[in-house]
Amino acid sequence: MLFEKNDFILFTGDSVTDADRKHPIGEGLWQGVGNGFVRYIDSLLNAFYPELNLRISNTGCSGNTTRHLRERWERDMLNFKPDYLCVCIGINDVWRQFDEPSLTYDHVSPEEYRENLDYMLESAKKAVKKDIVVMSPYYMEPLKKDMMRARMDEYGAICKELAEKYGTKFVDLQKVFDDYLKVRHSSYITWDRIHPSGTGCVLIAKAFFKALGISLKLK
Amino acid sequence: MLFEKNDFILFTGDSVTDADRKHPIGEGLWQGVGNGFVRYIDSLLNAFYPELNLRISNTGCSGNTTRHLRERWERDMLNFKPDYLCVCIGINDVWRQFDEPSLTYDHVSPEEYRENLDYMLESAKKAVKKDIVVMSPYYMEPLKKDMMRARMDEYGAICKELAEKYGTKFVDLQKVFDDYLKVRHSSYITWDRIHPSGTGCVLIAKAFFKALGISLKLK
Amino acid sequence: MLFEKNDFILFTGDSVTDADRKHPIGEGLWQGVGNGFVRYIDSLLNAFYPELNLRISNTGCSGNTTRHLRERWERDMLNFKPDYLCVCIGINDVWRQFDEPSLTYDHVSPEEYRENLDYMLESAKKAVKKDIVVMSPYYMEPLKKDMMRARMDEYGAICKELAEKYGTKFVDLQKVFDDYLKVRHSSYITWDRIHPSGTGCVLIAKAFFKALGISLKLK
Amino acid sequence: MLFEKNDFILFTGDSVTDADRKHPIGEGLWQGVGNGFVRYIDSLLNAFYPELNLRISNTGCSGNTTRHLRERWERDMLNFKPDYLCVCIGINDVWRQFDEPSLTYDHVSPEEYRENLDYMLESAKKAVKKDIVVMSPYYMEPLKKDMMRARMDEYGAICKELAEKYGTKFVDLQKVFDDYLKVRHSSYITWDRIHPSGTGCVLIAKAFFKALGISLKLK
Amino acid sequence: MLFEKNDFILFTGDSVTDADRKHPIGEGLWQGVGNGFVRYIDSLLNAFYPELNLRISNTGCSGNTTRHLRERWERDMLNFKPDYLCVCIGINDVWRQFDEPSLTYDHVSPEEYRENLDYMLESAKKAVKKDIVVMSPYYMEPLKKDMMRARMDEYGAICKELAEKYGTKFVDLQKVFDDYLKVRHSSYITWDRIHPSGTGCVLIAKAFFKALGISLKLK
Amino acid sequence: MLFEKNDFILFTGDSVTDADRKHPIGEGLWQGVGNGFVRYIDSLLNAFYPELNLRISNTGCSGNTTRHLRERWERDMLNFKPDYLCVCIGINDVWRQFDEPSLTYDHVSPEEYRENLDYMLESAKKAVKKDIVVMSPYYMEPLKKDMMRARMDEYGAICKELAEKYGTKFVDLQKVFDDYLKVRHSSYITWDRIHPSGTGCVLIAKAFFKALGISLKLK
Amino acid sequence: MLFEKNDFILFTGDSVTDADRKHPIGEGLWQGVGNGFVRYIDSLLNAFYPELNLRISNTGCSGNTTRHLRERWERDMLNFKPDYLCVCIGINDVWRQFDEPSLTYDHVSPEEYRENLDYMLESAKKAVKKDIVVMSPYYMEPLKKDMMRARMDEYGAICKELAEKYGTKFVDLQKVFDDYLKVRHSSYITWDRIHPSGTGCVLIAKAFFKALGISLKLK
Amino acid sequence: MLFEKNDFILFTGDSVTDADRKHPIGEGLWQGVGNGFVRYIDSLLNAFYPELNLRISNTGCSGNTTRHLRERWERDMLNFKPDYLCVCIGINDVWRQFDEPSLTYDHVSPEEYRENLDYMLESAKKAVKKDIVVMSPYYMEPLKKDMMRARMDEYGAICKELAEKYGTKFVDLQKVFDDYLKVRHSSYITWDRIHPSGTGCVLIAKAFFKALGISLKLK
Repeated sequence: MLFEKNDFILFTGDSVTDADRKHPIGEGLWQGVGNGFVRYIDSLLNAFYPELNLRISNTGCSGNTTRHLRERWERDMLNFKPDYLCVCIGINDVWRQFDEPSLTYDHVSPEEYRENLDYMLESAKKAVKKDIVVMSPYYMEPLKKDMMRARMDEYGAICKELAEKYGTKFVDLQKVFDDYLKVRHSSYITWDRIHPSGTGCVLIAKAFFKALGISLKLK
Repeated sequence: MLFEKNDFILFTGDSVTDADRKHPIGEGLWQGVGNGFVRYIDSLLNAFYPELNLRISNTGCSGNTTRHLRERWERDMLNFKPDYLCVCIGINDVWRQFDEPSLTYDHVSPEEYRENLDYMLESAKKAVKKDIVVMSPYYMEPLKKDMMRARMDEYGAICKELAEKYGTKFVDLQKVFDDYLKVRHSSYITWDRIHPSGTGCVLIAKAFFKALGISLKLK
Repeated sequence: MLFEKNDFILFTGDSVTDADRKHPIGEGLWQGVGNGFVRYIDSLLNAFYPELNLRISNTGCSGNTTRHLRERWERDMLNFKPDYLCVCIGINDVWRQFDEPSLTYDHVSPEEYRENLDYMLESAKKAVKKDIVVMSPYYMEPLKKDMMRARMDEYGAICKELAEKYGTKFVDLQKVFDDYLKVRHSSYITWDRIHPSGTGCVLIAKAFFKALGISLKLK
Repeated sequence: MLFEKNDFILFTGDSVTDADRKHPIGEGLWQGVGNGFVRYIDSLLNAFYPELNLRISNTGCSGNTTRHLRERWERDMLNFKPDYLCVCIGINDVWRQFDEPSLTYDHVSPEEYRENLDYMLESAKKAVKKDIVVMSPYYMEPLKKDMMRARMDEYGAICKELAEKYGTKFVDLQKVFDDYLKVRHSSYITWDRIHPSGTGCVLIAKAFFKALGISLKLK
Repeated sequence: MLFEKNDFILFTGDSVTDADRKHPIGEGLWQGVGNGFVRYIDSLLNAFYPELNLRISNTGCSGNTTRHLRERWERDMLNFKPDYLCVCIGINDVWRQFDEPSLTYDHVSPEEYRENLDYMLESAKKAVKKDIVVMSPYYMEPLKKDMMRARMDEYGAICKELAEKYGTKFVDLQKVFDDYLKVRHSSYITWDRIHPSGTGCVLIAKAFFKALGISLKLK
Repeated sequence: MLFEKNDFILFTGDSVTDADRKHPIGEGLWQGVGNGFVRYIDSLLNAFYPELNLRISNTGCSGNTTRHLRERWERDMLNFKPDYLCVCIGINDVWRQFDEPSLTYDHVSPEEYRENLDYMLESAKKAVKKDIVVMSPYYMEPLKKDMMRARMDEYGAICKELAEKYGTKFVDLQKVFDDYLKVRHSSYITWDRIHPSGTGCVLIAKAFFKALGISLKLK
Repeated sequence: MLFEKNDFILFTGDSVTDADRKHPIGEGLWQGVGNGFVRYIDSLLNAFYPELNLRISNTGCSGNTTRHLRERWERDMLNFKPDYLCVCIGINDVWRQFDEPSLTYDHVSPEEYRENLDYMLESAKKAVKKDIVVMSPYYMEPLKKDMMRARMDEYGAICKELAEKYGTKFVDLQKVFDDYLKVRHSSYITWDRIHPSGTGCVLIAKAFFKALGISLKLK
Repeated sequence: MLFEKNDFILFTGDSVTDADRKHPIGEGLWQGVGNGFVRYIDSLLNAFYPELNLRISNTGCSGNTTRHLRERWERDMLNFKPDYLCVCIGINDVWRQFDEPSLTYDHVSPEEYRENLDYMLESAKKAVKKDIVVMSPYYMEPLKKDMMRARMDEYGAICKELAEKYGTKFVDLQKVFDDYLKVRHSSYITWDRIHPSGTGCVLIAKAFFKALGISLKLK
């Protein structure tokens, strides 16, 4: 598969997506899409397929849980009516349970996570013209006994389940990183097991292209 | 072809290579290799081939002509005895003739360019263990009648000639950009026809991999 | 011709005019008119003709297309009822088509450009007391085969046509720069082929004076 | 046990000790001892035992391995001839092997670690008047199968062995954190599994006091 | 006594409490509770009793007198309905009488102090679920003949009287510091006899724990 | 008495004198003399007696004890051979004993204070052409039972004794502040009982003029 | 004469008064009154007469003409109902005619100056409880043939006339500076012939005290 | 007259020339020549005569008197062996006598001024290949009775005398400004009667061109 001329691809989510993008819309000149994985996808697509003239935009927001994203879903997603949507959300739903364990008002339970994501995917299904890529939340920790990793897996399962329910593409980012971490230690691609370095961004980009069946041969 | 385990690849040149790298050596954590094309090469190689454990270093310096690079060749290139060397130099040799036309003491003539590059490649030939990639200087201006483009072509020819003399790999960056600029205008990938955006960096990275016959399939 | 005592000359347009001027009105002490060509015109007029006591003001805004300028036309132009108006607008109408090709919502077509400029000149014709100088949009690229230059020429032609329709003075800045670029390369007077250096500012100032038939003999 | 009047306690090591201390010596007013665990120890001791008038100094340096510390051992430790020395070193000896795996020139092997530490403890034994506290390097990762944790345990064992050889007090910081991480997840007390939050600093301080048999009853 | 699982402890007051906390609520990661005595209490409690998962929050505001605190009492205290409240207020009620003697509109008289504190404690009594700790205002000046110290004692007496009236815990911070200042001079723990250094913060924390009968054995 | 035309008055000492003066010599335009009491003296003298054309210079250095001042006495005092010298030194000799009690290497004993000051006054006696004003160290604490005040009085006595021995003018700054603090509290004119506010600076200036018998009638 | 206990003295005007004061009201700690002549008056009065406990406040605003001051007269003067008012306004009414000659909308004519000042003094007469000091606008240029000086004299005359009409104290600042400039050149006390250095501030303070008959004997 | 191809024109002097130029040599891109009159000359010459390819360099230094300039004459002037030299020096020789009247060690007497300038012009005569333009020191004060103006006239006369002695071109900048100040007040083109605004820079540039007989017709 390949994108078609003038396709509009919207990325949204939390700080992993945001990565210091331009506000209110992360697009255009001077690193408008931010410095994260969206930049790598943008640079690769525009280097390989300039004739497609793709619009690539980023409305990720640092710190967002599904609760926050749902609140701004109308403004920052539905209204755009993009051809493609790529969303990665849920990491903070879990993280806050571990790094701010007593601030329970900020914790998003699996039930609420499911409900928020269900709401967002259902409405996205109507607003997005061509396809949706749902990326699982992840924790760059390969040992499944880790408390936070175990919890993240619960959310990842819900995420996958809903992706299937709505027939979207699904990227299992947790698996992507698990495979990589068999060779390199997590401290090589991230300082906090969440935010990816340039190498981590390429891993996400690669998985994104694979999910959509897009081929970029660097040779 | 593919790099071998623990290979040491050194990039050097001017601001296109430098791209705000760490000093004195551009390598390691926190974007040590800078934000330019070396970062893309580094991220791609480490994402695709982590088991190779490549050392990728950058000693490019903003504003350098061949005259400057030759002066620090011992310290910043020969001493490292890398397995691979990738050098892109000559843009400023030409540029100063056009943006500072009356400061002739800073201009590097084709003759001096040839001599400097010859000296550097000859000595590199002995110090570099495996292979050398010479990248041509370029100007992101597809119209050959442009004064500076025409001049850059002269230097590019010398560069190619010397690459052949010493049997190094050669990347014709000018051609890479010429091809791209058939589709997109130069203002899309650069603000000054020299410094590449993320997309421009991918184009250089792609050409680098192709020159060495390295395959990275993003699918 | 010469300005008369107390004449009020208003400059407006995009970043070429703006040049870091004071807000909300670019005038008065401490470089209120900015650091661009308006500063040169201001300095020259006040050095040569202090007895005229001219009010020279700047309401240019960086990034503006005709669409943006039209929106603030009432507030930033008509309300002032100046004696003279000098407007240079249209560069961004074209530029965005090349540096952000997929963000089509920001592109101003030749039709819209014509309509916007027609609206502005018609209303200006009534509000401006003495004369109007329309400066053509330009691209400091002498080769007409350049994609963006070719597009700019289309807009320049519309600009000229409307200047004639409304009987205003017209400055063909494209020609001014074309002539200059026969001798010096564009990288000497601009880093992005749009924003002029001090020398570029003098070229604009000179053309402005010539259009109005104002004589400043520097000897 | 308790310190005696005017005792001089010197802390040294890497960034965990340093914590933005004053240079060249980390002591005195305005947070001279830095913002890390040394500050907590300093504040607690001076609150509980002001009459002892203890001199508490910090010569830790961010990024130090045993190789760096050994180089400045004369200047920053031996010369002071303190009554007590507390040293925590070795984390970076291990960390660099994982976060910069290809920069092998910066890696300190177990053999070199042993040699460096042996040299330092032997000479310290003569220079320190009363007692020495050696704190083990640690990684705030409770799962022993983690690659870096496993490696850290090797170094920790050497550290313990040398502490015993020289009859110093020994603090098993790895165990301190292991115990804590049974209740809270590592993301609560650190963002990178190395640098402790305020809570982490108290855990270190508590272990330090326990090792020396110093009692501070907060009630 | 000991806190129970999930207890919510709210600290409020003036700059001594505030200490550069996060706004609007001082809690959570990255030193959200500020750098003052609340940080020490937070670090100690979370190091000793992680299983309690206490929520510790700070709504102190620099410069506040009881008049200011009363105005924001609803928003910043009552609404939270915490399990425990710790309030230290009144220092600025007195200080302004001495450092800005002629700005009488900012002075809070003993009568108003009593009324403000009475109002706050009465309403707190209903809103706070478990217990209240009232900390006396203080001046780190051991000589009672000092004008400001004498005045502070008047307010301290009112504070104590009201604490008794409402049956809250009471911490006589003045006494805490008086005792300490028998050994060290005030210039050791404060530069202005109000804001405590790290050591001063530990003294407050210690008194807080003692008032509630909480035991933290640092050994 | 009054200064004579072209007299050169040199002030030196610690941070009270320094007050952010210009380096290496605190004199001339743009607040070269700093923002402390020297500025007040300078402004007053130049407003009242412009015809005297006095050179007023400041070589005070923040943090200096007599030990530091003695080291730079040759360079920053003797070499200037001023007509008048005004020196205020000793505060830090005492302060360090109280705010950094365990850093004894920085403490200057009364014996050393006497020796340092004796050395400086003896040599000054020969180098200074007209007269010397010695200002006592002080502590803006009126209660003599205060530990640091008591200690300061010891040094003040030595200072006075040496002033008498060398027949210099003597300003008892301690008494100046004692008198003032009968009316206003110390927190009005200083935040740390050392550094004077504008009002405190006027008090010093007034005492300086009185000591020399200089009359400035502000009416 | 002397102020009475608790008198409230309000200073207002333009940048000469403002001098970087605190907003919204320039009073209280940390140089609240700014760094100009009000600071000198404040420091002197509080040093000489602390027992009077005077409230000294500053509501001057940089760049103000009488037109601006009149607009905020209610809020920044009348509402305060001070015991004494000191106002110096009019410099910018004149200055703008010379430094921005063509921006006539900012020029305040002598007629408008008279009307504005008349309005302000009449209303002040009722609101101010004890006395009013009107300071003349001035230009630190002793030669009366200077264009701007001549114009300033016109406004000064109006100012004096209105001060007499309303029976206020009048300070002829122009004369104060004229006298001083017989000895020193203007470049000594000001860089623009408007803003006074510390010495210039003392000259204003001295004139203020003299006008009110207040005696401060600096001896 | 007109410059010839590749002529090298060197400007040197004090802050009027310097105007924030690049160091060590003020030339080349990004406003290397500074923001003062040299920039105007540079912009005008390069706009009018690009084919001449003039090298225009600036070695002016802020605060310089002839004494300072003489010290660096070898390094910053003679060594360059320019075709043309333009020097404007002497303003600070005079200024310091008025703004720092008591710092006599910084004052340069007419005798020393003559000697310094004589030395510089004599040596320049040999080193400069084509012609020298000497610009008189000036004070933008038209009234000759002004103390500093009168003094400046003395130095201007010496300057003129030496220019004649060595047969250089001479620009009477004092007269240039005197003429201008008949129409506009000095506060329009300078804030301190020394540093020119853009308009003032044009006046200097105009005089420079006139002295050399260079014609630039702005029409």
